[in-house]
Amino acid sequence: MPVAKAHRISANAPDDVSGIEAAIADGRIDPKGVLAVLGKTEGNGLVNDFSRGLATTSLTAMFRRHLPAEHADLICLVMSGGTEGGMAPHWVVFERGEGQGGASPALAIGRAHTPALPFEQLGRAGQIEQVAEGVRAAMLDAGITDPDDVHFVQIKCPLLTAQRIAEADARGVTVATRETLKSMGLSRAASSLGVAVALGELEASAIRDADIGSNWNLWSGRASASAGIELLNHEIVVLGMSAAWSGPLAVDHAVMADGIDIEPVRAALARLGLSTPGQLCLIDRLRLVALLGKAEASHDGLLRGKRHTMLDDSDISSTRHARAFVAGALGGLVGHAEIYVSGGAEHQGPDGGGPVALIVDRSR
Amino acid sequence: MPVAKAHRISANAPDDVSGIEAAIADGRIDPKGVLAVLGKTEGNGLVNDFSRGLATTSLTAMFRRHLPAEHADLICLVMSGGTEGGMAPHWVVFERGEGQGGASPALAIGRAHTPALPFEQLGRAGQIEQVAEGVRAAMLDAGITDPDDVHFVQIKCPLLTAQRIAEADARGVTVATRETLKSMGLSRAASSLGVAVALGELEASAIRDADIGSNWNLWSGRASASAGIELLNHEIVVLGMSAAWSGPLAVDHAVMADGIDIEPVRAALARLGLSTPGQLCLIDRLRLVALLGKAEASHDGLLRGKRHTMLDDSDISSTRHARAFVAGALGGLVGHAEIYVSGGAEHQGPDGGGPVALIVDRSR
Amino acid sequence: MPVAKAHRISANAPDDVSGIEAAIADGRIDPKGVLAVLGKTEGNGLVNDFSRGLATTSLTAMFRRHLPAEHADLICLVMSGGTEGGMAPHWVVFERGEGQGGASPALAIGRAHTPALPFEQLGRAGQIEQVAEGVRAAMLDAGITDPDDVHFVQIKCPLLTAQRIAEADARGVTVATRETLKSMGLSRAASSLGVAVALGELEASAIRDADIGSNWNLWSGRASASAGIELLNHEIVVLGMSAAWSGPLAVDHAVMADGIDIEPVRAALARLGLSTPGQLCLIDRLRLVALLGKAEASHDGLLRGKRHTMLDDSDISSTRHARAFVAGALGGLVGHAEIYVSGGAEHQGPDGGGPVALIVDRSR
Amino acid sequence: MPVAKAHRISANAPDDVSGIEAAIADGRIDPKGVLAVLGKTEGNGLVNDFSRGLATTSLTAMFRRHLPAEHADLICLVMSGGTEGGMAPHWVVFERGEGQGGASPALAIGRAHTPALPFEQLGRAGQIEQVAEGVRAAMLDAGITDPDDVHFVQIKCPLLTAQRIAEADARGVTVATRETLKSMGLSRAASSLGVAVALGELEASAIRDADIGSNWNLWSGRASASAGIELLNHEIVVLGMSAAWSGPLAVDHAVMADGIDIEPVRAALARLGLSTPGQLCLIDRLRLVALLGKAEASHDGLLRGKRHTMLDDSDISSTRHARAFVAGALGGLVGHAEIYVSGGAEHQGPDGGGPVALIVDRSR
Repeated sequence: MPVAKAHRISANAPDDVSGIEAAIADGRIDPKGVLAVLGKTEGNGLVNDFSRGLATTSLTAMFRRHLPAEHADLICLVMSGGTEGGMAPHWVVFERGEGQGGASPALAIGRAHTPALPFEQLGRAGQIEQVAEGVRAAMLDAGITDPDDVHFVQIKCPLLTAQRIAEADARGVTVATRETLKSMGLSRAASSLGVAVALGELEASAIRDADIGSNWNLWSGRASASAGIELLNHEIVVLGMSAAWSGPLAVDHAVMADGIDIEPVRAALARLGLSTPGQLCLIDRLRLVALLGKAEASHDGLLRGKRHTMLDDSDISSTRHARAFVAGALGGLVGHAEIYVSGGAEHQGPDGGGPVALIVDRSR
Repeated sequence: MPVAKAHRISANAPDDVSGIEAAIADGRIDPKGVLAVLGKTEGNGLVNDFSRGLATTSLTAMFRRHLPAEHADLICLVMSGGTEGGMAPHWVVFERGEGQGGASPALAIGRAHTPALPFEQLGRAGQIEQVAEGVRAAMLDAGITDPDDVHFVQIKCPLLTAQRIAEADARGVTVATRETLKSMGLSRAASSLGVAVALGELEASAIRDADIGSNWNLWSGRASASAGIELLNHEIVVLGMSAAWSGPLAVDHAVMADGIDIEPVRAALARLGLSTPGQLCLIDRLRLVALLGKAEASHDGLLRGKRHTMLDDSDISSTRHARAFVAGALGGLVGHAEIYVSGGAEHQGPDGGGPVALIVDRSR
Repeated sequence: MPVAKAHRISANAPDDVSGIEAAIADGRIDPKGVLAVLGKTEGNGLVNDFSRGLATTSLTAMFRRHLPAEHADLICLVMSGGTEGGMAPHWVVFERGEGQGGASPALAIGRAHTPALPFEQLGRAGQIEQVAEGVRAAMLDAGITDPDDVHFVQIKCPLLTAQRIAEADARGVTVATRETLKSMGLSRAASSLGVAVALGELEASAIRDADIGSNWNLWSGRASASAGIELLNHEIVVLGMSAAWSGPLAVDHAVMADGIDIEPVRAALARLGLSTPGQLCLIDRLRLVALLGKAEASHDGLLRGKRHTMLDDSDISSTRHARAFVAGALGGLVGHAEIYVSGGAEHQGPDGGGPVALIVDRSR
Repeated sequence: MPVAKAHRISANAPDDVSGIEAAIADGRIDPKGVLAVLGKTEGNGLVNDFSRGLATTSLTAMFRRHLPAEHADLICLVMSGGTEGGMAPHWVVFERGEGQGGASPALAIGRAHTPALPFEQLGRAGQIEQVAEGVRAAMLDAGITDPDDVHFVQIKCPLLTAQRIAEADARGVTVATRETLKSMGLSRAASSLGVAVALGELEASAIRDADIGSNWNLWSGRASASAGIELLNHEIVVLGMSAAWSGPLAVDHAVMADGIDIEPVRAALARLGLSTPGQLCLIDRLRLVALLGKAEASHDGLLRGKRHTMLDDSDISSTRHARAFVAGALGGLVGHAEIYVSGGAEHQGPDGGGPVALIVDRSR
């Protein structure tokens, strides 16, 4: 019976994989079982974020030292740039082990890779379909049949650069946008709607291309999309609960209605056995293996009726502002900032809010 | 018997004083009683932050329409740049009214202006002495004799620019630093130590010039300093409790040990009658008139033992990161982000932390 | 017979109008004759550039000290933010004097203000029409009948903010874009096409809304548009040669094909009597009263066949990169950097290039 | 007889070494002869520039595919971050071939590695001496005896980290600075003064430790230094003319007195046979193999007597401003921007200026 493991490991730099190698060396991690690595790296999280590429290069080289290349290259590497505010760069390594049993149902992990996305489909229906198909494949891989048992879907999606747009132009096709920064948002938007479709939160037929990246009433409560310059396809990781898996880990999720809406997260922690009136106590902090969430600036320029300035700041991207701010709100709740808060939450939770997944070790 | 009033008013832009004028028009604010205005404006909070100058210009012109120039120009205008994350630009207008009585002791307000600071004294003992003298003058003005009754001292201090350094060079004197951005930190540092000396938290004789901006074991739990390009002297506002004042407002303070240390703030809220297990409820939010706090990145590069990247980010100043992050932590506690979180907390609270003052309306 | 005067005056800060006041005090400038002030201010030149508002506020207050408010407020104040690289913040004051004669034809100046632009017309045909009408009015004001005699048209145009978009939404109308930064580009684009229409460079009927801000084959060789948050209408200043004017000043223009295409500028200088093989000599530098130009990053991501990275840099806007770079190219030619290089050259010269106007004093 | 070769190759990303591999594949480059690679990569050129690490990682992996690791690792990899303005990311590969003769004297390349620098000597006289010794060794390696024949010295120098400072503390010695960022500047400063000493531009005895990184009257007209965390010693590459070498390439240099002082560069081009009144013509552009220069903002805040704002901009580092601006000035002269303009020019040329080396192919 499969047992899911999740290891949160600090990184001293985008290419610091020493913590993972140490865990492999002393047997805590079996490289053969590693399915995916989620990483927070300290670039700007935008078009010219080379920390993600550096991390991906370093992780790939490291896993190839321990596995056959064709096996190593199957591992989903989802690097989310931007550790604004007090966030700590770190890796979350997801591993599938085999069966000393334990509690069941338990955390189940599935993954899938889509084919390369034609640049002209980015931010359009074609991307939604491709992602929905990929999510279904990842659920199958995780042994999850009921969409309600899915608590988090992490997707790494491509973006457009000036050069990729030129390539599309050369083929005589039109892209959804000619702005590289905007393409990151459209890619995240279509990917997230693809998750909503796969999980039955939305009907594909109800989504028009014009809604993508603009109609914020359409959203998924469990999607997390992150765009990167270093890939041309989608990497999908599904986290949920399954009776086909066993082990100490459990996952649940909450949806924040805005950047400081931490009470639903507090409630989810309580459902997982970490009940707290104020900040999470030291013991419970150790039981919280990972927090995975999304952040964004609300498009109406308001937070609880007061004006925020994130969208009018031309020096700092609103995604950087939002990650720092939401990391502070969640850090104030859980008591540390080695958390995975990813920016750009288009259609990921309501406008200005976002989904938050929590993985807890029930054995500690 | 004096009655202190504090009005929190939203601003739609650095030069939007319409909310204050409306309050004057309908009698909520009597311009003759206004002692100070604290403002959060949406610039970068650094050397080239022109939002503060624009706000100061607009406030001065507005008050001159309602008061004789010489009176209007006495009002302390303390503009703190940087409304990162979800922070809302706003004004807090402090007014001294006369006596329909009410609860006593109550919030008391005092203020002082120092002479212009010679550029070569910035960041050195001369600035500490000048500020300590100013704080004592402001306490006298507030009718506060016991330093323990002081809960917040807001100081606006000068900084060096390339041109001011050139002027010092021309006079043949040496400045403490030739880096304009660093000069903001040194000015805040010396000003805060001046507060600590005035409040008896530190002995002036125990502080060497070399400690200023470097020995973080020396700090005040009630100082808040903010540097601005638009002034050459210090503007000082003291907030405390005094039996010589009456009225509905009360003030208390907490010291955060780091950027997410919100429990001391929760305790201070409870002492003021706003007890809450989670996020402040809607009614209590209305009773919280103002939150004034400081934020900074810890100099050891760590938050609760995990690495933060604020000091190694050459694209965004650590002060902007810290304001966004701490505003998120405090916003998650009090339920909105129209709060005054100011960056650069050198010697203002322990390294990486900062003081937080809370003003509550006991009559609501 | 009208005599045009142009005064280039250094500014020590966005609110430093002391140089202009000194010129008024000693009679070099007669405030009654001032038609317009072009200013380079040191903000970021983007949405949250408060240096422009601070400059406008300071200039208005200054002129009101010397003129009746209704007269002072007619002066066109065109503040262009962003003095990247070595550019020096400065003012160019345009004045209309009366007749001690001198050479003719000579520099002629005309101006016009349009009504406020409805937010939903920004970046669309309505803005093109409104601007074209305004340019014709300004030519009439300058006494210029032949469009070929116009060498520069400076337009200050509005932009959208999150709040203005919300206002349009409230009226149930759609705006051309919901991105504030993009709105600056669309406003400059439509304004520039309006100039092209007024000068007969393009036919209004040949421009579709879809061309605005996207079809770079449509451009004016004499338009300079700059967007600012501080106005809701257009301020238009036309510079040209007219036999109805006399005096020492003459104007001509060149069109740069890309960011380092300085040879056409060298040729224009030669036509004005400043012939130079290398960098302008010291004497000729003094004869060059003002250089007014535009800069932008080419949309194909290439400069002379090599890749530039301005469009893929999410930390610094491409407009800031381009201003610094083009200011270096032009500074290398004319021998100083107190020049007016404005960013965002949509439809202002060919893609990646821009118009440059040169004003020379023939009497020195 | 040795023949020096220099290959300028465009890079589509920091990890794009495909152009170099293609040149190796078709025999244009023999990896066994490669001595050094200078690269312009598109990061911010500051502390958190991961484009340099990504480039170094990619180059090392590539050369190890063609050479034994111990040989590949001898190649000097000098990555300069920051391709601001229109600068094009590219590599300049320096190769030593053997003798089909041709013109002589010709470009000569020498290389040297110094021993590890004791941390307490960084930024002090000890580093100056060590670098001077290393430059003499590199001259010997290049077969250059007369210092006047040296036209460019590229040095990669170490910096201090918290760990290295701790090691120095443990040995009871004091370091020149405890700020790691400042240590980069001090290391570049001392290294550049070491070049000046080796080339006879300055007397070692005339330099006090206090001058290092502060007395800008002391400078070398041929030094180019960049600090890197990955080495503890110095990697030195000397470019000059030697009768012991032959081949089509020649090198000369100029010293810019400020950011737009291009006439000395024009004169150097003329000495190399590329005489031009205006911008370099297309044919001569092809003969210019490489331009290597330095840029910085003048510390007095002035350019030709006018104020620049580079040092007061807290949003963009002055090094980024300066690179963009100087690249524009030099690009306007040579007709393209695939040039190597590096920031941080402490003691490299006069304050605000910098050295420029030009490599020309005389056979084209």
